[in-house]
Amino acid sequence: MKLQKYKRDSELSYAMGATLVAELLKTQPKAIRRVFLRPVEKHGDDLEKILTDLKLKNIEIIESTKAFNILGAKDNCLLMAEFSKCNALLNQDAPHIVLVNPSDAGNLGTIIRTAAAFNYTDIAIITPAVDPFDPKVVRASMGAIFHLNISQFSSIEEYLEHAGKRKLYAFMVNKNAMKLGEVSANEQAYSLVLGNEAAGLPKDFAEKTGAQAIFIPQSKMVDSLNLSIAAGIAMHYFAGFSSED
Amino acid sequence: MKLQKYKRDSELSYAMGATLVAELLKTQPKAIRRVFLRPVEKHGDDLEKILTDLKLKNIEIIESTKAFNILGAKDNCLLMAEFSKCNALLNQDAPHIVLVNPSDAGNLGTIIRTAAAFNYTDIAIITPAVDPFDPKVVRASMGAIFHLNISQFSSIEEYLEHAGKRKLYAFMVNKNAMKLGEVSANEQAYSLVLGNEAAGLPKDFAEKTGAQAIFIPQSKMVDSLNLSIAAGIAMHYFAGFSSED
Repeated sequence: MKLQKYKRDSELSYAMGATLVAELLKTQPKAIRRVFLRPVEKHGDDLEKILTDLKLKNIEIIESTKAFNILGAKDNCLLMAEFSKCNALLNQDAPHIVLVNPSDAGNLGTIIRTAAAFNYTDIAIITPAVDPFDPKVVRASMGAIFHLNISQFSSIEEYLEHAGKRKLYAFMVNKNAMKLGEVSANEQAYSLVLGNEAAGLPKDFAEKTGAQAIFIPQSKMVDSLNLSIAAGIAMHYFAGFSSED
Repeated sequence: MKLQKYKRDSELSYAMGATLVAELLKTQPKAIRRVFLRPVEKHGDDLEKILTDLKLKNIEIIESTKAFNILGAKDNCLLMAEFSKCNALLNQDAPHIVLVNPSDAGNLGTIIRTAAAFNYTDIAIITPAVDPFDPKVVRASMGAIFHLNISQFSSIEEYLEHAGKRKLYAFMVNKNAMKLGEVSANEQAYSLVLGNEAAGLPKDFAEKTGAQAIFIPQSKMVDSLNLSIAAGIAMHYFAGFSSED
């Protein structure tokens, strides 16, 4: 059993916990390389069911406490799947969520979970950024990451080359910025662009990219909204223009 | 210097980090009991400015590395304030955010930060729940907690006795539930009620309290939204009925 601590440049990542493994098995069974099981006296019915499904698909199950230690799993984590990461292609005719330099694993995972909830299937991440396949992000996404296309780009220009013709909505304040409540999105293909937790988007972002700047009105009691909250409000608002339920 | 690890039943809590101490000093200087300063060779200008302001208010500043260790501060935390907790009274004529059994410190802090952003000044917490004055919550709120009235109740019934006449909107699914986008809130006094991260609200909550059930439409890809995201979307939506900017 060759195994080492998770690294960003590895081609493999880890889904930690039975719920995540079940989600991965349901959505991307072919991505699973092998599964680690913590040796314990008795497994619950839910875990037994997942083990049966894994065996039916001929996925190797390795009993090992050491594997859980190497990957820094919590004591109550009984099952982990090793899976192949994939830098997916984005759909050119779908809306995208574009995150410029996100730095927090919890935020990124939560944004991915929210994106899936509102039927956004395509996420672009502009690096430098937190690694979207870090097991912490996978966990915070509650497995939603397995449903989506996640693609990383080294600059916004590189993203735009691959994104297809589309309208950009950038969450930032400038002199042409519109209030969120005043925007109507009629395009099928658009991108919601959000910046880094601390720095936001570059000041010249809208000018440089032709994006419409948008701000979410807020009181002077706080400096800003948490990134995942701003993204959630933005996604819910824009999803309202396309969804029928 | 008598000091011990933070405990829920203590009358004192801690604002950790210069930014939080500055926010506390600006909003509730009288609540500060004393301030701890990590002995380091050189302080930055921002920290010096805060120290000057503290001295002007005759607040005791204690240099001690041990204090930071006792409270489990991170290495880059140079300043901490000890402050008196206060279970505030809620405004009967203002909207309230009511959290039933929230269990995660990060979620609660983020919800408090979002509430302040959307001018919600009154938060009710139904116990059992994470301690709203836990330094982790204070930190996740980015100091927004110092601006708000936070009040804890042992049951929803106890809350309703103190809340004044108001309309309740409960985020849950039942047979009378309305989609968020279809609700118009015309009342000045209303409460947005959200349940626990894992369990949600009790099934009979709306029936028992006369609340209007509301759901946020979402795809089948996820089981639910993160609690702080659902709360953020709800607050942003309802704030739209009252705010002019």
